[in-house]
Amino acid sequence: VHRVLIDAKLPGVGEIVAVEGEEAHHALRVKRLRPGDHFELLNGRGEVGVARVIDHGGARADTAAPRRRPRAGVLLGELEQRTGVDPVVPRVEIFSAVPKGSRADDLVDQLAQVGAALWRPLSTRHGVVDLRSVRLDRLARIAREAAKQSGRPWLMDLGGPVPLDQAPTIQTEGQPRPAVVIAHPGAPCYRPTGAGVVRLLIGPEAGFSPDEVESAVRAGATPAGFGPHVMRIETAAAVAAAIIIHAEQTLRTAPGVLPHTAD
Amino acid sequence: VHRVLIDAKLPGVGEIVAVEGEEAHHALRVKRLRPGDHFELLNGRGEVGVARVIDHGGARADTAAPRRRPRAGVLLGELEQRTGVDPVVPRVEIFSAVPKGSRADDLVDQLAQVGAALWRPLSTRHGVVDLRSVRLDRLARIAREAAKQSGRPWLMDLGGPVPLDQAPTIQTEGQPRPAVVIAHPGAPCYRPTGAGVVRLLIGPEAGFSPDEVESAVRAGATPAGFGPHVMRIETAAAVAAAIIIHAEQTLRTAPGVLPHTAD
Repeated sequence: VHRVLIDAKLPGVGEIVAVEGEEAHHALRVKRLRPGDHFELLNGRGEVGVARVIDHGGARADTAAPRRRPRAGVLLGELEQRTGVDPVVPRVEIFSAVPKGSRADDLVDQLAQVGAALWRPLSTRHGVVDLRSVRLDRLARIAREAAKQSGRPWLMDLGGPVPLDQAPTIQTEGQPRPAVVIAHPGAPCYRPTGAGVVRLLIGPEAGFSPDEVESAVRAGATPAGFGPHVMRIETAAAVAAAIIIHAEQTLRTAPGVLPHTAD
Repeated sequence: VHRVLIDAKLPGVGEIVAVEGEEAHHALRVKRLRPGDHFELLNGRGEVGVARVIDHGGARADTAAPRRRPRAGVLLGELEQRTGVDPVVPRVEIFSAVPKGSRADDLVDQLAQVGAALWRPLSTRHGVVDLRSVRLDRLARIAREAAKQSGRPWLMDLGGPVPLDQAPTIQTEGQPRPAVVIAHPGAPCYRPTGAGVVRLLIGPEAGFSPDEVESAVRAGATPAGFGPHVMRIETAAAVAAAIIIHAEQTLRTAPGVLPHTAD
């Protein structure tokens, strides 16, 4: 099913949504949606709907839609279903070193697929990419495409660079204090804790320096391992985010172990 | 540290190893190893060593190495350490649909990094890639490079295409019967079982058909989910393999829950 992502509240069931710009172009010209076809509508903030393409110009008189024929390149749909979906629990924030070139695109793309809530570039001693060169606008477009591809009701947020020494303590606006984990080869397997927000710090391919790990641990981070071998940044990030979500959700559904949420 | 992968038993400590071909060229011309430098030596079958580059032509008289100056492009090293490493437990076998183009390379690369033991292409109704076009020789080279990059002591094996109806039951030579899991969006989270071999079936982006899932379940496969969103094949494969290894290893290290191995 084709998915369309808009930056607005969804209308009510039976009402008309008008999609413009690139999304409309893609749906009409590339995917060739026709009157009667259905598409999924996302707004990136938890609202999900199913709409039916209505005849161009055939908007019903009992709706708020214009009666004139729509402009070329506007996709008109009538909403048939509408629901609100909660964000993934736990909220996983990944602060990582930045891989070179197009691997940064892969990093954001895969993190969005696995369900991370936020990614920020992490400034570390042995990082090789100048964080001023990170194109957050470009990466935000990749996160949007990944949300459509994977049917994510909530967009993954991106933020600016964070120095490692601030990473364990810096507050994400509107969010509770996170449980902080630092990925460290050879550390014990990640263990779920029931935290509502987990922030994971991932170093560059040369690793964190020993005193970087020590400072992070003093600031409250727990070292954890996410696999038997050394992984490239983008693989480590996706895999670790997925393991955290899986382990925490397993903990929450284990009979009588912990309350459903805890933070 | 630079890693060199050879296709032979490692010599004993104090003995000389002669590395030829592409590996020697890369170490000498690209990485510019010099006498006295150390490198890691892997053979892809669990043997791991550390060797010191010896002076070209300076092979000691008490070793088996030739006394003449080595040919150009031969890397001579004296083994200083040598150890044997067991394969990752559990053994994870991934049978998956094949993504298009270079995403098949990414699939094999990432599976090797996370520690999967075997990958085979899976033939399914809605698969879009002709499995006869899968270049196993090319993918084997990618698995070798990933093993060096990530320091895997054991190469990931690759095998030929398997039809879905044979996937739950086909035997891997020399291996016990696997626990079989079929990745299915919406199924309960993967739960570790203590199995020594876990085989995971991953469908194409259009999914398995309902009767494909039903047949696999009748043949003994357990449906399991690996995340909240739909993932592309290569992301799903890497993430699911990593989750299985993590969950099984966590189970094995939990106090008094299960024996260390069970199959």
